[in-house]
Amino acid sequence: MAGIRRLVLDVLKPHEPSNIILAKVLSELEFVDGVNLSLYEIDQNTENVKITIVGDNMDFEEIKRTIERLGGVIHSVDEIVAGKKIVETVMTEQDR
Amino acid sequence: MAGIRRLVLDVLKPHEPSNIILAKVLSELEFVDGVNLSLYEIDQNTENVKITIVGDNMDFEEIKRTIERLGGVIHSVDEIVAGKKIVETVMTEQDR
Amino acid sequence: MAGIRRLVLDVLKPHEPSNIILAKVLSELEFVDGVNLSLYEIDQNTENVKITIVGDNMDFEEIKRTIERLGGVIHSVDEIVAGKKIVETVMTEQDR
Amino acid sequence: MAGIRRLVLDVLKPHEPSNIILAKVLSELEFVDGVNLSLYEIDQNTENVKITIVGDNMDFEEIKRTIERLGGVIHSVDEIVAGKKIVETVMTEQDR
Amino acid sequence: MAGIRRLVLDVLKPHEPSNIILAKVLSELEFVDGVNLSLYEIDQNTENVKITIVGDNMDFEEIKRTIERLGGVIHSVDEIVAGKKIVETVMTEQDR
Amino acid sequence: MAGIRRLVLDVLKPHEPSNIILAKVLSELEFVDGVNLSLYEIDQNTENVKITIVGDNMDFEEIKRTIERLGGVIHSVDEIVAGKKIVETVMTEQDR
Amino acid sequence: MAGIRRLVLDVLKPHEPSNIILAKVLSELEFVDGVNLSLYEIDQNTENVKITIVGDNMDFEEIKRTIERLGGVIHSVDEIVAGKKIVETVMTEQDR
Repeated sequence: MAGIRRLVLDVLKPHEPSNIILAKVLSELEFVDGVNLSLYEIDQNTENVKITIVGDNMDFEEIKRTIERLGGVIHSVDEIVAGKKIVETVMTEQDR
Repeated sequence: MAGIRRLVLDVLKPHEPSNIILAKVLSELEFVDGVNLSLYEIDQNTENVKITIVGDNMDFEEIKRTIERLGGVIHSVDEIVAGKKIVETVMTEQDR
Repeated sequence: MAGIRRLVLDVLKPHEPSNIILAKVLSELEFVDGVNLSLYEIDQNTENVKITIVGDNMDFEEIKRTIERLGGVIHSVDEIVAGKKIVETVMTEQDR
Repeated sequence: MAGIRRLVLDVLKPHEPSNIILAKVLSELEFVDGVNLSLYEIDQNTENVKITIVGDNMDFEEIKRTIERLGGVIHSVDEIVAGKKIVETVMTEQDR
Repeated sequence: MAGIRRLVLDVLKPHEPSNIILAKVLSELEFVDGVNLSLYEIDQNTENVKITIVGDNMDFEEIKRTIERLGGVIHSVDEIVAGKKIVETVMTEQDR
Repeated sequence: MAGIRRLVLDVLKPHEPSNIILAKVLSELEFVDGVNLSLYEIDQNTENVKITIVGDNMDFEEIKRTIERLGGVIHSVDEIVAGKKIVETVMTEQDR
Repeated sequence: MAGIRRLVLDVLKPHEPSNIILAKVLSELEFVDGVNLSLYEIDQNTENVKITIVGDNMDFEEIKRTIERLGGVIHSVDEIVAGKKIVETVMTEQDR
């Protein structure tokens, strides 16, 4: 296992296609092992979701195209994990 | 294991049939492994429950029909987990 | 294992019979594996307890009759877990 | 293993005999596996301690007599765990 | 394993001998497995430390004499664990 | 395993090259096992990221050169873990 | 394993030599297994770091000399763990 292993994306999308479909389609990309899609804000025509994608050697451009093909826009990439080992962020004295 | 693996639903329902029955009926759907139903608000005629459903290749439409057949309405799908691996949402610097 | 696996009950009861007796009697029901009874409010004649019951294929009506036979009343069923797997509730972005 | 498995007691006691002695005597009861005694308030002549006792098929009356023989009084039984399995209390939406 | 298994002590001591020496001497008592000494307040001539001692069948009087021989005074015994099993204190509804 | 094992860096960088590229390039350094890059502030031309790098006998100068080659500047090294064992920081009474 | 097993030190040091060097040199002492160095305050000419050192039968005087040789001063020894077992500090009712 190597390359991009986990991504946390902040995505703005229309209500349709549904989040069920978006999560399923992303989870079916060849290099993806699993997807967590959490809804955090709903407006009249759009909604904001936080998407966590785990996999091996993930192709960010293909993930981006998939989200855009379903009407979504990536607002920011909040976390990237890359390499042989999954590394979690560490709380330091600077964060307290 | 693949497809939809976990759903968190916000559901409005009448007091009857009881939550005991709703949890049991959902847990008996063929593709469901387990259900957690938590009550978070009670009004005179209705109540709001948070339902977490875990399974393999879950059929959202059948879950929805089952809830509606027992008088409930899904207000929102708060989280969807899909794919070979169960992925938990990750706290990032953006959430602090 | 299937059916109702865990229940969290909010119960109002008189001081006698004691909580020791109530916990023991519930734990001796055939389908029950264990009981946690926590006291959270005491008044002059009554007390409020939170009862968590774990088991397999639990019969809610029998649990209810047992509590009522010992003078208690179930105020609400706060959580129900059902199915082959014990599912915990998941914190979502909606809960933050 | 069955019957009463864990008790959390709120006890008022004189300074003597010491908490060291009280914890030791309770831990030597035949049906007790372990005792945790925590001091939470000291007054001029008395102190309040929280006692957690773990065992198998514990005899509450004998525990009570032991505490009283050493000058203590049980103010309340804050938690009782009974049955084949140790069940922990579960945080529900009602507790948030 | 039985008897006193863990003690948490609140100790007032002079700056000398150092905490390094106090921790080491306590850890070398025959019935002690390990010691954690945490500094929580420093004054001009004295300091307050919280000492957690883990062992088997520990002799409180010998621990006390050892601390006093090095100039310290036990202000309070905040927690005592005794018996075959190490029991942790349990958060109950009364603590919330 | 020895030498520098984990570093937490506070880095200021331009938007391009992207964080995806920075995380990937760092994860491909020979002595690196994994990288976590978290975005915590975005300004018009720059962004601040917290980078956690895990590996064996890591060469800080090479990590620094790599970051600078991609336009970034290390503002501070917030945590360093070195040696045969990964040691986590410990909360003491002084931190409460 | 015995003697001093873990130390948490509050150290004031000049910016140079760097923390990378200080962590590495400490981790290379024969009796040290691992070092965590966390930066918590930076001033114009000095910085404050919290150093956690884990090892077996550690020689405090040699650690102190090593830190002083690199220009640092130990302000306080915040925690000492000694003995056959690593003992963590325990939260008691007195800490709540």
